[in-house]
Amino acid sequence: MSETVKTNKPEILYEVKAQRGPTLRCKGWKQESILRMLENNMENAEIPELLVIYGGNGKCARNWESYHAIVKSLKELEDNETLVIQSGMPVAIFKTNKLAPRVVMATTNIMKADWETFYDLQDKNLTIFAQYTAAPWEYIGTQGVIQGTFETLSAIAIKRFNNDLAGRVYMTAGAGGMGGNQSWAMKMHGGVAIIVDADERVIDRRIEKNYLDQKVYSLDEALEIVNEAVAKKEPTSVAIVGNAADVFEEAYQKGFMPDIISEMCPCHDPISYIPSGYTGVEADEYRAKDRVAYLADARATMIRQLETMNKFYAKGVEVFEYGTSIRKECRDAGMPEEEAMTIPGFVSEYIRPLFCEGRGPFRWTCLSGDPEDLKRTDDLALEICKGDPLVERWIKLARKNLPIEGLPARICYMGFGQRRKFGLAVNELIKKGEIKGPVAFSRDNLDSGSIVNPTFESENMMDGGDLISDWPYLNGLLNCAAGCDLIAIQANYSMGEAVHTGVTMVADGTEEADVRLDASLTVDSGIGVIRHAQAGYQTAKDVANGVGKLTTDSI
Amino acid sequence: MSETVKTNKPEILYEVKAQRGPTLRCKGWKQESILRMLENNMENAEIPELLVIYGGNGKCARNWESYHAIVKSLKELEDNETLVIQSGMPVAIFKTNKLAPRVVMATTNIMKADWETFYDLQDKNLTIFAQYTAAPWEYIGTQGVIQGTFETLSAIAIKRFNNDLAGRVYMTAGAGGMGGNQSWAMKMHGGVAIIVDADERVIDRRIEKNYLDQKVYSLDEALEIVNEAVAKKEPTSVAIVGNAADVFEEAYQKGFMPDIISEMCPCHDPISYIPSGYTGVEADEYRAKDRVAYLADARATMIRQLETMNKFYAKGVEVFEYGTSIRKECRDAGMPEEEAMTIPGFVSEYIRPLFCEGRGPFRWTCLSGDPEDLKRTDDLALEICKGDPLVERWIKLARKNLPIEGLPARICYMGFGQRRKFGLAVNELIKKGEIKGPVAFSRDNLDSGSIVNPTFESENMMDGGDLISDWPYLNGLLNCAAGCDLIAIQANYSMGEAVHTGVTMVADGTEEADVRLDASLTVDSGIGVIRHAQAGYQTAKDVANGVGKLTTDSI
Ligand SMILES: NC(=O)c1ccc[n+]([C@@H]2O[C@H](COP(=O)([O-])OP(=O)(O)OC[C@H]3O[C@@H](n4cnc5c(N)ncnc54)[C@H](O)[C@@H]3O)[C@@H](O)[C@H]2O)c1
Ligand SMILES: NC(=O)c1ccc[n+]([C@@H]2O[C@H](COP(=O)([O-])OP(=O)(O)OC[C@H]3O[C@@H](n4cnc5c(N)ncnc54)[C@H](O)[C@@H]3O)[C@@H](O)[C@H]2O)c1
Repeated sequence: MSETVKTNKPEILYEVKAQRGPTLRCKGWKQESILRMLENNMENAEIPELLVIYGGNGKCARNWESYHAIVKSLKELEDNETLVIQSGMPVAIFKTNKLAPRVVMATTNIMKADWETFYDLQDKNLTIFAQYTAAPWEYIGTQGVIQGTFETLSAIAIKRFNNDLAGRVYMTAGAGGMGGNQSWAMKMHGGVAIIVDADERVIDRRIEKNYLDQKVYSLDEALEIVNEAVAKKEPTSVAIVGNAADVFEEAYQKGFMPDIISEMCPCHDPISYIPSGYTGVEADEYRAKDRVAYLADARATMIRQLETMNKFYAKGVEVFEYGTSIRKECRDAGMPEEEAMTIPGFVSEYIRPLFCEGRGPFRWTCLSGDPEDLKRTDDLALEICKGDPLVERWIKLARKNLPIEGLPARICYMGFGQRRKFGLAVNELIKKGEIKGPVAFSRDNLDSGSIVNPTFESENMMDGGDLISDWPYLNGLLNCAAGCDLIAIQANYSMGEAVHTGVTMVADGTEEADVRLDASLTVDSGIGVIRHAQAGYQTAKDVANGVGKLTTDSI
Repeated sequence: MSETVKTNKPEILYEVKAQRGPTLRCKGWKQESILRMLENNMENAEIPELLVIYGGNGKCARNWESYHAIVKSLKELEDNETLVIQSGMPVAIFKTNKLAPRVVMATTNIMKADWETFYDLQDKNLTIFAQYTAAPWEYIGTQGVIQGTFETLSAIAIKRFNNDLAGRVYMTAGAGGMGGNQSWAMKMHGGVAIIVDADERVIDRRIEKNYLDQKVYSLDEALEIVNEAVAKKEPTSVAIVGNAADVFEEAYQKGFMPDIISEMCPCHDPISYIPSGYTGVEADEYRAKDRVAYLADARATMIRQLETMNKFYAKGVEVFEYGTSIRKECRDAGMPEEEAMTIPGFVSEYIRPLFCEGRGPFRWTCLSGDPEDLKRTDDLALEICKGDPLVERWIKLARKNLPIEGLPARICYMGFGQRRKFGLAVNELIKKGEIKGPVAFSRDNLDSGSIVNPTFESENMMDGGDLISDWPYLNGLLNCAAGCDLIAIQANYSMGEAVHTGVTMVADGTEEADVRLDASLTVDSGIGVIRHAQAGYQTAKDVANGVGKLTTDSI
């Protein structure tokens, strides 16, 4: 008997690669583009056999049956139909009209949401976790995270260091899934990164993948390397095996003053935070043995870590929280509110000014699969955004330093006005044949008008509107009205903590795409500008009135 | 000095009446129709000077400044633009395209919502309460509530009483804002209603307005009237001044068996529920004096009321909870879970089978203001839905019994397929001039695909998906894709308890309206059918497959 007969399992795909080239499998390029985006998600997936794209639980489909049904539906979808996806399961196709989206989705939306409720509904096969770009098929690999840190450091460079981080030192902690990208981003800026991680296994993995240059076991060894690199203004990164609380304290006591300090330990989930005195392996054992004692120890260490960060802050070092919840967790663990909230969060400090210009993690994917198409779009971005230091610096560095993962893609913090201009120009080049295949525009969650998350993107709004979640829904409806090709309304972050809208717009060289891109690339960042203008930010008011720096478009 | 100079207040409108007739103030009939719907809301408003439409706090605009700005925006809005409203405030106009909605809104959406948070944000002028039809400008007066009860009673008539309630008795309690409509609905069915209310002032108001026929002070007096009416099969209603718990108990002890029992006391808010032994006035005093003792007393009475209802249920009487939360409140007050949950909720018992056919409180408003237009549409409804007992009975009774409030409007539980057919036929009659002005289609919250509310519309779903809120968002996006003219995503009910989508679609006799109505009247109820089919309801599966009773349309 053959194996397939024996196992009696349905045939499932364990590896998906995005189709490249000019062959059309669907009834139009919009549908084909969306299908390739889905396949590209899978090509970059963490655990493709489980349809998990990234973040440990962010899925692109409910199950394999749904995956295949989605692929089939996209192949059969007409140019005037809309496919409806409910938490990763295709549930209907309706006749709409030519300018309507081809796909609408809603994922992970749950009333009275908490994790227990979510897991219960997931067990009933009624929902999945969206993550930000997993469910709406917009993941493009690690570039997104690197760029997020890069732009944060850019904002700091402009604010404090005359727009230049060469010879500057960024001390941080946590070399994990997200945190491991910090060294790369700092090196792209020409600076020096020190990353403390208590788990040597994680550091070794990062060194292997070239995300870290060197590993040491003490602050003193690290400082030797760092001082030399600073003197020569040479970019480098060094990992210290140790606990963030201990190493930060030692650095402070020894009078070592880095230029920038943050950390990406898993503070939001204290049972993952490693207490002082334990290696990664020891922490695993301790955690399994005595959860309660572990948590008490972890919280005590975390408070020491934040206390030291506060001390550096008091000395004038650029210190910030990088979305790990360390401030909230320390407060909940007993640190006085005011002390816990000393340092600023990175969004309200560095990213919100960008939001006011309608900037955020805009990105595009070249669906031909041809690296030449990416090159042409990179050139075009430099052309269109000439004189915008943010775009110019990033594109020049990214094209040199970042590998292609899956379909060639580029992320870029373009703002209101720039996106529309760029999108239309890309469509023009496709028309002319200078770009060989369609290009899909999308973005990550951290965008100007697409998300509400009161402990992150919408923290500390000027008008106190941190919790108002009308905005992501308006973003979704407006994108839908404007002819965006795929729209997804999703819950995210911790359960009940965030809502955002994902969008994909396709340039395929048609006149129809001109109409769609013109409107959707305007409204998507436009509603972000409006939201910040409403909240009282002057830059946003200027942009809305057509007197911003990037564009003369107005709303 | 003249008064206007003296007061120095901005000129505000305290009374708005919807424009009637053929004069167009906007750049197209869609915009004009939406403007008239807004004005009609105000014409029917509870407290127009505060922009409160109904339900005590449901508003149509953030403030008067917003109101005037909305009117102005609608007047200036082009045929390819979309106006964006965030919780009653117009925030932007974007160029979209001709088939896009003219208005998109999001209202009352708040993260981590509770009443305290809501009030805080409302105080900051960042949100308003949507109610169901207030914020999206779809309120049409009391007809909606009467019809809700009418259809519930219809479902019971079909289930138990050979589709005829003449000579049947409905015993209930609570003659307040919603509850007061129960007698009217029962009388429209030709039956007899007994309503117990502890507050004589409320009963007097209802009698004055013709919602109740007679007032008595004891069960015995009531039974005399009731027995005579039943014998003659004459419709009538009688109010008993008394406490529901006491009167229900007495009825049970005396062996009086009504055919149907429910209640609409404010159980969801126990501080409004009147404890046994207190009149309305006395309860007001008691409440002010000792809140804690009041609540304990109220809960004890409520438990007695539900215990008696359970006893009637055990005897085979048709007893149900009418969305007051009496079961949940009694459970929370200490009644054992199983006992508290004895009787069914009305949605899962009577309304869900209608949802499976895509039915729900669909309605239309004749924007000419001409009662002849309503007559013509009533006739048309009877024509199109010939043989559907639900539509036939209601339309015949409604046109005879219900007054016109504001612009002539009709609510009607049409289902999937019927709505599309009806909408297109209306548009045809407008084209031909048989209907004199545009007609706007909308609906209330209690619709098949538009809402999630785990203690109400989505309670007790077959697949356990009560809490899945992807559906209303999909409804909103799909309607937007289908060319619906106004779409609103809203939070509702108690804070954090419900989300729904409101829609308005305009028939103005154009070809464009044909395209829009064809798609939007299909998707709006269609996604409701799909949701119920997904959950496992056979009727819904049949309807989706084109083998339902009402239509051969399929999805
Ligand atoms: N700023 C952003 O945009 C952003 C985005 C995503 C996640 N985050 C947050 O960043 C944090 C890290 O995310 P991740 O995906 O990298 O987590 P991860 O679990 O993959 O990695 C965490 C790393 O921290 C190390 N660590 C734990 N305790 C430590 C201690 N006391 N001292 C030194 N090292 C310690 C662990 O060994 C591990 O390598 C999380 O709190 C996450 O929520 C921020
Ligand atoms: N089924 C539905 O579609 C639906 C819709 C809206 C509201 N509701 C629910 O219906 C209930 C009533 O709503 P409403 O707007 O009519 O409220 P309301 O406050 O206007 O009226 C309640 C009435 O109940 C009377 N009452 C209070 N306690 C009593 C008692 N123990 N015995 C007799 N009478 C008593 C009061 O005097 C008052 O007249 C609420 O719980 C509401 O949430 C149901």
